[in-house]
Amino acid sequence: MAAPTTLDKVISLAKRRGFVFQAGEIYGGSRSAWDYGPLGAELKENIKRQWWQTFVRARADMVGLDSSIILPTAVWEASGHVATFTDPLVECLSCHTRHRQDHLIEAFEAKKGRAPDNGMADIACPNCGTRGEWTEPQNFSGLMKTFLGPVDDESGRHFLRPETAQGIFVNFANVVTTARKKPPFGIGQIGKAFRNEITPGNFIFRTREFEQMEIEFFTAPEDAPRYFDEWVKDCWAWFVDLGLDPERMREFDVPDGDRAHYSDRTIDFEYNFGFAGGDGWGELMGVANRTDFDLKSHITASKQDLSYFDQASGERYVPYVIEPSFGLTRSMMAFLVDAYTEDEAPNAKGGVDVRTVLKLDPRLAPVKAAVLPLSRNEKLSPVARELAEKLGKHWNVDFDDAGAIGRRYRRQDEIGTPFCITVDFDTLEDHAVTVRERDTMSQERVPLDQIQNYLAGRLLGAN
Amino acid sequence: MAAPTTLDKVISLAKRRGFVFQAGEIYGGSRSAWDYGPLGAELKENIKRQWWQTFVRARADMVGLDSSIILPTAVWEASGHVATFTDPLVECLSCHTRHRQDHLIEAFEAKKGRAPDNGMADIACPNCGTRGEWTEPQNFSGLMKTFLGPVDDESGRHFLRPETAQGIFVNFANVVTTARKKPPFGIGQIGKAFRNEITPGNFIFRTREFEQMEIEFFTAPEDAPRYFDEWVKDCWAWFVDLGLDPERMREFDVPDGDRAHYSDRTIDFEYNFGFAGGDGWGELMGVANRTDFDLKSHITASKQDLSYFDQASGERYVPYVIEPSFGLTRSMMAFLVDAYTEDEAPNAKGGVDVRTVLKLDPRLAPVKAAVLPLSRNEKLSPVARELAEKLGKHWNVDFDDAGAIGRRYRRQDEIGTPFCITVDFDTLEDHAVTVRERDTMSQERVPLDQIQNYLAGRLLGAN
Repeated sequence: MAAPTTLDKVISLAKRRGFVFQAGEIYGGSRSAWDYGPLGAELKENIKRQWWQTFVRARADMVGLDSSIILPTAVWEASGHVATFTDPLVECLSCHTRHRQDHLIEAFEAKKGRAPDNGMADIACPNCGTRGEWTEPQNFSGLMKTFLGPVDDESGRHFLRPETAQGIFVNFANVVTTARKKPPFGIGQIGKAFRNEITPGNFIFRTREFEQMEIEFFTAPEDAPRYFDEWVKDCWAWFVDLGLDPERMREFDVPDGDRAHYSDRTIDFEYNFGFAGGDGWGELMGVANRTDFDLKSHITASKQDLSYFDQASGERYVPYVIEPSFGLTRSMMAFLVDAYTEDEAPNAKGGVDVRTVLKLDPRLAPVKAAVLPLSRNEKLSPVARELAEKLGKHWNVDFDDAGAIGRRYRRQDEIGTPFCITVDFDTLEDHAVTVRERDTMSQERVPLDQIQNYLAGRLLGAN
Repeated sequence: MAAPTTLDKVISLAKRRGFVFQAGEIYGGSRSAWDYGPLGAELKENIKRQWWQTFVRARADMVGLDSSIILPTAVWEASGHVATFTDPLVECLSCHTRHRQDHLIEAFEAKKGRAPDNGMADIACPNCGTRGEWTEPQNFSGLMKTFLGPVDDESGRHFLRPETAQGIFVNFANVVTTARKKPPFGIGQIGKAFRNEITPGNFIFRTREFEQMEIEFFTAPEDAPRYFDEWVKDCWAWFVDLGLDPERMREFDVPDGDRAHYSDRTIDFEYNFGFAGGDGWGELMGVANRTDFDLKSHITASKQDLSYFDQASGERYVPYVIEPSFGLTRSMMAFLVDAYTEDEAPNAKGGVDVRTVLKLDPRLAPVKAAVLPLSRNEKLSPVARELAEKLGKHWNVDFDDAGAIGRRYRRQDEIGTPFCITVDFDTLEDHAVTVRERDTMSQERVPLDQIQNYLAGRLLGAN
């Protein structure tokens, strides 16, 4: 068996420490979705807050929105999703399972290092192994449907949104009117989206239920290319500022013919997740120039005026839209893979142990500080508990008194806690504690009455 | 026409100022869900953060979770929802629309002040007016279904969760193991849930897509009544601490026969929303003693061991569960109604005007401060913009230079902004600004280099 890759180790750590659980695991689980445990929920929440702070609250040219998952069906007809959001599927004539034709061919190429000589005739069914017995490809909708109202028939059929973007487009005029914004300005939104992926997989990378962080930035048509470039730059900077290694990121300028139906230009950010097969890279986010495609489609379908009258120039136009669309759970996976480190730490026997550390940016770390009494002791524990409670009013703080101190450090290193605060017997005399920094393992003594300010300074921007 | 009620005014303000929009309004809208505009998204986000901070991060006996909306169907079979989550519907024999029998009878009683003498024979169809022509009631599932996987048939049928709770129960063992928690402890979760309500209505009060904030608190069976009482107290305190008027809240001890199938005891908190019809009150949240119903159901159905072995007592038991379940959008509606105030403010003509103020707690207010140059002026505007940008790194801050200063104050009062910061010509000399407090309209002069600390002190706990 091959040695585990970094990705294998990250997935194992994520499950073992409660970042990510298989959805419905006690019933055999599902590949459609994942559940986020105590640490995963905090990490995901921290990514969202950083995104919202950077792109929505801190920018004068942005506002937020939170639209619903189920919108009227007319929205998805106008957006083109009902007609074009489909995958070509082939059915095995032997076992009748359906598969994406493009994925079958890609898998063949990845395995054999060449294209199939005779097309689908060379390709075996991944389910039953029968070779070359396939139907012609048929289009299959990636939209997930549900039914609303008291009558259970097609009249109540609705779709779960496959992207949060349309909820922004249909509210464009509402926001212009009520928030008194005018182009260039953007609307940001974080929320769930649903796509009936034929082959979910790669841990939390491709799931049927997922979460997006999307921006639709409205601009005069002639300014769109300039804002496209600016957003590519701003998005790249956001990932790097939060600690992602730019050497593991790359831009991919999606060529004509491969872009979504609405896009005039798309740059994807890819991250080297280390996937088995292929070259290990996967899409992290994309910036698209959606032109005036969506607003015009909704103008035609809804008969509402979604154009903008620019009082300064005296011109009326339908804004172009630059769309930075982030995968939230993909971002979380990238931050985890990137933060995963193994180094060496001294052990109790005077030697060194391999130490697993998640070097997460303190703003993203699920636990900001752990308060550790040196030992489980009736004098130390109350002081430590009181401190944990006091700091807990401001940050997510752990209290841990179980086991040897070195082992407790290891536990915190492994989940990325930036600071361990040890309460020892000296604390009872000098009213100070030892603060240990995660990455350097350096320690310094800080007076109890200054510890909150100390942390506030070191955790700047964490909330 | 009757004068608008406070509720009418709040709904009007919410739409006019961009707190809440009708979902898919440009396509005729939907009563199934609402969209939250720039201010509504911020207010909702602030409620969530306060809840998460109070009940998850600050408590040593709580952790968070974020489970998926779509869980395996086996979960909903085990939980009893597939069998019992139904409403009795009657169908009009004339127009074939379906209605909830209990709602038809309630509406009759509300209108006539008495029960119908002859049962359904007295009741007219709200759609077509035909009287007394009804089928016998039939059970209709409140679960919303969708289909996963490449084959569009019953084998792929899944349900959207009608409550976030089950995602917690099925992860109970995972959390105990990975987060090293033991009863008494709880798991909190915020997320969307979906119920195919027959009659959505009352603005954001009853919708088919909605958001919950739920806690499942696991305890030894004999301690359940005590924790039930504690949670009732803690939840009540949370609403009051964030400004809800306790005079407009009441507890309702739900009698035998009226509780959900899993509950041994339920106390609902009701709030006086001022609904037309009935007495104006509506359910805000509920605390239920779900006993060991859910864990035992999942033990039976999944064949997994979800019991807990208490090392201290040497006993093994299936924990009881106390569930405080908050409606997020209902809470938001209550905070809005409660904050709505009309008082008097001096106008430019030396008289007084009626002033609309949302007296939201500063922690909930969507905009924390507005920076207003006294007039649109090339010397004042850059100073004001720079200040807005600087403060915007920490809080959601508005910049507004459009119109008379009094009018701009009114705009900020109406959306609940706690502080207006005016940059005037003196500012260019004394490097200070005037801070106006929303509720008292009192003003004080604060040096520019102290304004951030000033706000930090006054906005304590806002993030």
